[in-house]
Amino acid sequence: MMLKPRGRLASPASKPSLGNGERVLRESVNLAAKLATFSAHWSPKTVAEFNGDDVMVVKVQGEFVWHSHADTDDFFLVLQGRLTIELRDRKVQLGPGELFVVPKGVEHRPVAEEEVHLLLIEPSGTPNTGDVATAAPRELI
Amino acid sequence: MMLKPRGRLASPASKPSLGNGERVLRESVNLAAKLATFSAHWSPKTVAEFNGDDVMVVKVQGEFVWHSHADTDDFFLVLQGRLTIELRDRKVQLGPGELFVVPKGVEHRPVAEEEVHLLLIEPSGTPNTGDVATAAPRELI
Repeated sequence: MMLKPRGRLASPASKPSLGNGERVLRESVNLAAKLATFSAHWSPKTVAEFNGDDVMVVKVQGEFVWHSHADTDDFFLVLQGRLTIELRDRKVQLGPGELFVVPKGVEHRPVAEEEVHLLLIEPSGTPNTGDVATAAPRELI
Repeated sequence: MMLKPRGRLASPASKPSLGNGERVLRESVNLAAKLATFSAHWSPKTVAEFNGDDVMVVKVQGEFVWHSHADTDDFFLVLQGRLTIELRDRKVQLGPGELFVVPKGVEHRPVAEEEVHLLLIEPSGTPNTGDVATAAPRELI
């Protein structure tokens, strides 16, 4: 469950060579097509890079853990379904075409009663739980 | 047509106070609702901030100018319509739910036969034409 350090993309040996990041930056990405390639929840997949940030798609359902990111804001754009982002003082409800940026350092917990598809953006190497010990590994699709 | 330097948001005097950026970060954003508030083409509007980047919506139609950004990648996500991003060696076609990141330094020209709605992400203060002399002013909605 170790995360790669920031920098070049690493990909599983079974995937086509993407090690130099070039292909990722120069291809158009169909978000629905990328989402159709996997079914696991809470396992973000990097589909593009932008200035050292990972642009990711993820499917979520249920309650995530409360966490915060000390060094980065957290970008959520709902593509399908309805997401609640619980903050300590209120809840933010998001439907398709709605986005929210959790400021860095702010505790939050994403909750989805039914499956939700999201676009996420975070600096490469950011642990999704805020803690490398419990974070999902970085995966490129 | 001067751009503000990177940093805090500036907003027209007629808008509610948003000078500290706090409201922008902490509100959910409905992209379609934001897009419904204006009709001008090639005039990006900042709807959120993410780690010093502007998250923007824009309506485009026709041909933009050839340009590049020396210091930043250029993120395009099509929300409605069909966009062609011309590169010097090929064209990238994007429909709704498709994104493309133009690598920094790469010349490109967005072209839209009919009106297209886009989500853009760029570091705050990036001139949309690659040149502050011809860039659209930064606007917050």
